[in-house]
Amino acid sequence: MSSTYGENLKLSIFGQSHGPAIGMTLDGIPAGLPVDVEKLQAFLNRRAPGQNDWSTPRKEEDKPEFLGGILDGYTCGAPIAAVIYNKNTRSGDYENLKNCPRPGHADYTAQVKYGGFQDAAGGGHFSGRLTAPLCIAGGLCKQWLEEMGIHIGAHIFGIGDVGDDKFDLYAPQIHEIDPEFPVLNKKSGKKMRWKIKEAYEEGDSLGGLIQCAITGLPAGIGEPMFGGVESKIAQIVYGIPAVKGLWFGEAIKAIGVSGRGFRDEYFVENGQIRTYGNNNGGILGGITNGMPVLFCVAVKPTPSIAKPQQTVNLQTGEITTIEVKGRHDPCIVPRAVPVVEAAAAIAIYDLILGNTQTDRRK
Amino acid sequence: MSSTYGENLKLSIFGQSHGPAIGMTLDGIPAGLPVDVEKLQAFLNRRAPGQNDWSTPRKEEDKPEFLGGILDGYTCGAPIAAVIYNKNTRSGDYENLKNCPRPGHADYTAQVKYGGFQDAAGGGHFSGRLTAPLCIAGGLCKQWLEEMGIHIGAHIFGIGDVGDDKFDLYAPQIHEIDPEFPVLNKKSGKKMRWKIKEAYEEGDSLGGLIQCAITGLPAGIGEPMFGGVESKIAQIVYGIPAVKGLWFGEAIKAIGVSGRGFRDEYFVENGQIRTYGNNNGGILGGITNGMPVLFCVAVKPTPSIAKPQQTVNLQTGEITTIEVKGRHDPCIVPRAVPVVEAAAAIAIYDLILGNTQTDRRK
Amino acid sequence: MSSTYGENLKLSIFGQSHGPAIGMTLDGIPAGLPVDVEKLQAFLNRRAPGQNDWSTPRKEEDKPEFLGGILDGYTCGAPIAAVIYNKNTRSGDYENLKNCPRPGHADYTAQVKYGGFQDAAGGGHFSGRLTAPLCIAGGLCKQWLEEMGIHIGAHIFGIGDVGDDKFDLYAPQIHEIDPEFPVLNKKSGKKMRWKIKEAYEEGDSLGGLIQCAITGLPAGIGEPMFGGVESKIAQIVYGIPAVKGLWFGEAIKAIGVSGRGFRDEYFVENGQIRTYGNNNGGILGGITNGMPVLFCVAVKPTPSIAKPQQTVNLQTGEITTIEVKGRHDPCIVPRAVPVVEAAAAIAIYDLILGNTQTDRRK
Amino acid sequence: MSSTYGENLKLSIFGQSHGPAIGMTLDGIPAGLPVDVEKLQAFLNRRAPGQNDWSTPRKEEDKPEFLGGILDGYTCGAPIAAVIYNKNTRSGDYENLKNCPRPGHADYTAQVKYGGFQDAAGGGHFSGRLTAPLCIAGGLCKQWLEEMGIHIGAHIFGIGDVGDDKFDLYAPQIHEIDPEFPVLNKKSGKKMRWKIKEAYEEGDSLGGLIQCAITGLPAGIGEPMFGGVESKIAQIVYGIPAVKGLWFGEAIKAIGVSGRGFRDEYFVENGQIRTYGNNNGGILGGITNGMPVLFCVAVKPTPSIAKPQQTVNLQTGEITTIEVKGRHDPCIVPRAVPVVEAAAAIAIYDLILGNTQTDRRK
Repeated sequence: MSSTYGENLKLSIFGQSHGPAIGMTLDGIPAGLPVDVEKLQAFLNRRAPGQNDWSTPRKEEDKPEFLGGILDGYTCGAPIAAVIYNKNTRSGDYENLKNCPRPGHADYTAQVKYGGFQDAAGGGHFSGRLTAPLCIAGGLCKQWLEEMGIHIGAHIFGIGDVGDDKFDLYAPQIHEIDPEFPVLNKKSGKKMRWKIKEAYEEGDSLGGLIQCAITGLPAGIGEPMFGGVESKIAQIVYGIPAVKGLWFGEAIKAIGVSGRGFRDEYFVENGQIRTYGNNNGGILGGITNGMPVLFCVAVKPTPSIAKPQQTVNLQTGEITTIEVKGRHDPCIVPRAVPVVEAAAAIAIYDLILGNTQTDRRK
Repeated sequence: MSSTYGENLKLSIFGQSHGPAIGMTLDGIPAGLPVDVEKLQAFLNRRAPGQNDWSTPRKEEDKPEFLGGILDGYTCGAPIAAVIYNKNTRSGDYENLKNCPRPGHADYTAQVKYGGFQDAAGGGHFSGRLTAPLCIAGGLCKQWLEEMGIHIGAHIFGIGDVGDDKFDLYAPQIHEIDPEFPVLNKKSGKKMRWKIKEAYEEGDSLGGLIQCAITGLPAGIGEPMFGGVESKIAQIVYGIPAVKGLWFGEAIKAIGVSGRGFRDEYFVENGQIRTYGNNNGGILGGITNGMPVLFCVAVKPTPSIAKPQQTVNLQTGEITTIEVKGRHDPCIVPRAVPVVEAAAAIAIYDLILGNTQTDRRK
Repeated sequence: MSSTYGENLKLSIFGQSHGPAIGMTLDGIPAGLPVDVEKLQAFLNRRAPGQNDWSTPRKEEDKPEFLGGILDGYTCGAPIAAVIYNKNTRSGDYENLKNCPRPGHADYTAQVKYGGFQDAAGGGHFSGRLTAPLCIAGGLCKQWLEEMGIHIGAHIFGIGDVGDDKFDLYAPQIHEIDPEFPVLNKKSGKKMRWKIKEAYEEGDSLGGLIQCAITGLPAGIGEPMFGGVESKIAQIVYGIPAVKGLWFGEAIKAIGVSGRGFRDEYFVENGQIRTYGNNNGGILGGITNGMPVLFCVAVKPTPSIAKPQQTVNLQTGEITTIEVKGRHDPCIVPRAVPVVEAAAAIAIYDLILGNTQTDRRK
Repeated sequence: MSSTYGENLKLSIFGQSHGPAIGMTLDGIPAGLPVDVEKLQAFLNRRAPGQNDWSTPRKEEDKPEFLGGILDGYTCGAPIAAVIYNKNTRSGDYENLKNCPRPGHADYTAQVKYGGFQDAAGGGHFSGRLTAPLCIAGGLCKQWLEEMGIHIGAHIFGIGDVGDDKFDLYAPQIHEIDPEFPVLNKKSGKKMRWKIKEAYEEGDSLGGLIQCAITGLPAGIGEPMFGGVESKIAQIVYGIPAVKGLWFGEAIKAIGVSGRGFRDEYFVENGQIRTYGNNNGGILGGITNGMPVLFCVAVKPTPSIAKPQQTVNLQTGEITTIEVKGRHDPCIVPRAVPVVEAAAAIAIYDLILGNTQTDRRK
């Protein structure tokens, strides 16, 4: 009902930031799919913290232990289960987070919903740390999609006021993005890193945009209405902490361009139906049209800034000021890039598993 | 799997644009809820076509006939079922839409997915006409939410390059929006109507933005991760044809504002916890914080423009040109406003039905 | 959540016994499947009332009107929707059923659950009449399964103390059962009809057993644990009013036979793996083994007997006596036979749609 | 889709008999519910193997390690996750099980479905060992139900040809059943144990019946049709390996008793509506009527008997004979008793979480 996703596969994510472990179960996956553990680890490392100057120095190895579902390098049909044990266990005065919620975090809403019983330490189940098991599931789906010739890649589309280039029509760039700092234009990347450093030094934080492309998807994937590709991607992408916006294709131009400028007229290329532009982001009526699926994700600036912030003491009702201690990511956008890819991979793989496309042609 | 929505309520929408009828079943609704049929009809009329100069002249009364679930003005616990019979039945050469798909519509993707068996007439199940049963379900949920003091209102936030005002902090304007042409600023409304008229005369079309507010929601509604308010609203809103973008609060500023500018610090007002701003759109960690839930929807320009458009004859593989006949809405944004409200009402009512908030307080 | 079934297909049933109509929507069905309306009608007629001497004389034609999902004799990919309008509309003093619930019916439980708002007339949503839309959905699934070589047939296995023969190992009899009074042994059938007549004349009623076989199912259908064939069939079969028991294969012998007598050893027949017996009813670990799936359903005696019965007036709390007026089926088992087939067809078709069987062999 | 259960709570079970671990995640549970770990362990011990003379000597401590969802003795709102690490790891020639499937086990169906990729060791995901995580989830739900005054108890109703007493009308016995060998009549229990010993010595096995009662349930729980108490219990109970039959109340008498003998007439006791008998097992129309919910489960004799059994070598297609080595339970019925209680607890708690009972009374 909550930390569970999927119609055909069933993903269930568990754990709290400072609890014993985080992990996931992934049910409904066919047997006989190969699992490349090293490749998965490389994918998880893109998200892992403490690896560079722009992210939190909390070091967690994020090495999943598989408890079921995989045998001799292949899925065995049983649910896949994986855990990552937390090494940084709970400590410090976390009761304070219950009483004096940090602005912009889920501290207050968790307190209202769970009545003080929630695990508040480090954000508990609301922590960005829970994207690690999402990346385990997503990293696996990504591998299986690649086997089918479907590729998913994302890049930082903007941080602060610095933008990156856009994907070309068929998004060939997804195979060449440098995982360390994923941008299309290295010059923009340099400016972004400088911006992040600047924000860090000022005790401030930055949000940004991520653009994701899915290539190689055949036409005809997705279901009408609430089972469309947009709905499925949206449901999971909004499960990523800090994501507050999502749009497909050139939706952002909806206000600036008329129907004449937005249409994607058809032509034929190597016997395939294509469109000249891709304003619709590869999706019409919720169903893929064979062009790359394209979407943009808006990530809000991390609310943990090194400045005093006003809050309310929920026990006394009095206004008070808190200062968030410890070092935090001044910008989580770079680390969120593989998480967006993971979310997209899960959504697409779920749709493919349940695809009801007819085989007969009239 | 497709035209079905909900965890606690189960909405199922059926029908094709030129089939015998469109309709919906809505299961899981408690007994004893009052149903105001006149109020529902007034709500449906806001979406109905043919009522003014900026929408398609196809006249359908859109009067639902209830087949079950309602007795003597109250829900009776059985699933609610309603149909609207189509009076404008199928005619004309719709086979052509299968062979020569209209750019920007679902004609091509439906042809690939359904192999020619789909009901192509008027877009079939992909037609905007299917938002009428969505509005039946949503109009009912809206009434039941209002009984709890929860109100939902939306306005046109922009059409072409003309913008409307934004909602104030507590969105009191939702009670005063003129349903005929829903804007906050009447002057902007006038300009928008002029823009639509202009586009119509040029055989062009316009997209736009819709801003929606939900007020009166208590804090604590929503589930973590994939069951959050954002995920639930996104899944259903992306089921509305022509919607290509959605963001919450001020997500669109994610790239322009730093953490310092985005934070929503807490204060107390009449014993209630409030935030000074509402950048997060009333949602933190997927859960409501007691501020109005705010979101923006991007609607693409109608692809049916009165210009020749290039397409491919799927049988011959040859490029050809089609001209979409008949009059169509030059801009569906005004009619989409109640549809967005309906979608939001269904999502919120579903969340409230399944709310697992604890009653004990620590 | 209630009148909704299915993982891959989504069946939603609506209507009340004396409401405007009963009907169903069936979503998730692939396009291009042929629909034989005459064959469906013949199937529905097996369930319809008023056709013979042992069932209620209420005559309803039970002719479904399709509102969507079918075009030119084929499924079109959109949800299938069908209604049957009720011709015998509400009348009489049904308020009495709310106050003085009939023993053995859902009158009392509906009153408690729906607080008096329920549609009590004729049992409302709990009426056996709701099995008509179940038979629409099931009759369609049955046709599509037959196209794949999968056949479903059931017979009366016992009424009162009169038993029928059992299916042979491969259940070839399912193709020869007389639909009018479905038994394998005509002599037993005669005795059963006589028993029913006798019960009717005494103002009494009879329950019985139904045995159902599904032949032609390939091995490998079904999912482990809660997604097994037994779980799926059980969930839907228990949705049929008056069903109180269900077992697979020779489960009823569980108490009388030891492991030595219960085993189904393997052999090879025409290159196919078979078992000598079929104690397990064609299912091992929730998954089909290629033998016919066999199950028995226990139907309780109709609680509406022509005798005074003691009940409690819920308003006054006083004990009172009611006599159920009107003629009712003295035994619904014969009419329940196609309903059991319909339920099985829906369950199996749902499992086949979502089958995740691997294609690779190790 | 498979090893996942629940509408309001979401249970996901993972693991294989000889894999690294078995476990479960349980999502959708409200915060603030107390967790008594010792009581849970006592419950799990009732199922654990190797504790007495009639069960397999494989010793596993079955001590769950909680990885999330519980904090300071209370649920914290996050998904509950628990694992039990397997100490008896894989060994021996299990490839043989793939080639020469044991009759009556899931070896053959798993081989067909998973194409040889399945974890065949010890039955893999189909092993009875997977009922341990089911008992973790069920043991927790049982505690929370007890807090509401709802109690669940089961006893061996029959083994071989030895039967036990039946529950009395209000099933007060559930509080007095000896967990070691759960019967109502100690003399019957003695005979059963002797029967099991006898079967063991003969290298044979026995099945049996389990009767379960749920007391203290208020009237009005359950949803109509496929969401009824019978459907919900059936779906999960059929997920228990070796269960092949299930019936409610006195369904087994459906063939022997007429409507006159089956009716449950109403009376008033201490201001509560009651029925004189409980033929319907506390459920009418899928909804509880305030009487104890009663059901019987048929467990087949363990197929692992110490006799040569005929099977087919799937690689060569030749008939061969296998002898199942190692000691196995000659009768799993005693150990299945807490598993049935666990399954019932999960089903009932799920129904209570989603109960849509109206509060207004007409």
